[in-house]
Amino acid sequence: MARALDSIGDWWSLLIVRDAFDGMRRFGEFQKSLRIAKNILAARLGQLVADGILELGPSTDGSRYHEYRLTAKGQDLFPVIVALRQWGEAYFFRKNEAHSVLVDRRKQQPVQKMRVLSKEGKTLVAADTVVKKVRGL
Amino acid sequence: MARALDSIGDWWSLLIVRDAFDGMRRFGEFQKSLRIAKNILAARLGQLVADGILELGPSTDGSRYHEYRLTAKGQDLFPVIVALRQWGEAYFFRKNEAHSVLVDRRKQQPVQKMRVLSKEGKTLVAADTVVKKVRGL
Repeated sequence: MARALDSIGDWWSLLIVRDAFDGMRRFGEFQKSLRIAKNILAARLGQLVADGILELGPSTDGSRYHEYRLTAKGQDLFPVIVALRQWGEAYFFRKNEAHSVLVDRRKQQPVQKMRVLSKEGKTLVAADTVVKKVRGL
Repeated sequence: MARALDSIGDWWSLLIVRDAFDGMRRFGEFQKSLRIAKNILAARLGQLVADGILELGPSTDGSRYHEYRLTAKGQDLFPVIVALRQWGEAYFFRKNEAHSVLVDRRKQQPVQKMRVLSKEGKTLVAADTVVKKVRGL
């Protein structure tokens, strides 16, 4: 997990990844969403590309802009982002406060709460689990 | 999600939470595991207590030490920690490298890969979902 955190770098990077999951592609879109200095955003985007989480390519609409897109490795952060989003929704919003919720695009129903499941599909809390070292070959 | 990240503070804090899930309770245990300066560790532990993620109480073994324990809010970070751990295991270890894996304590089987599930239990990728604003009352 420490290696995962080293790679993501800092919170800004995770917020950039969240925005990428929300469909943002362009430098200006990220900047408008995150309201951070251009040089900091450029450094974070560059690091995410270097780490293979985002890739930079030509715009899909034929314009002169370049687009940042999630790689497969970046896409695999989806459960992390959703788990953090749900935890934030549970603890950092007042009961009647406007907030966002992730829904199944087709059915428009909220996604399930993220749970840790046993092989048989039972919900596990931390006390039901243990970390095992797996030796290399 | 930004509020969730603000609260967790930084990577050190998330590594402290991971260690707490792994059963660590005492200042010295965290320090040995994370090898960070005592003043930084003290500040991070203090912030986690202030944010209601850890609570400080007397030692359960009757010794003079105090123990840091996860609150319910802290326990609810379990899916976040497991998702990050699995992503790290998938991308930051060579094929034959020793690593750790989270197993069901009773059956000793690895837990399932974290997935985002629809209400009906279908696995969803990011493109299957959309963020909806929920208005406050």
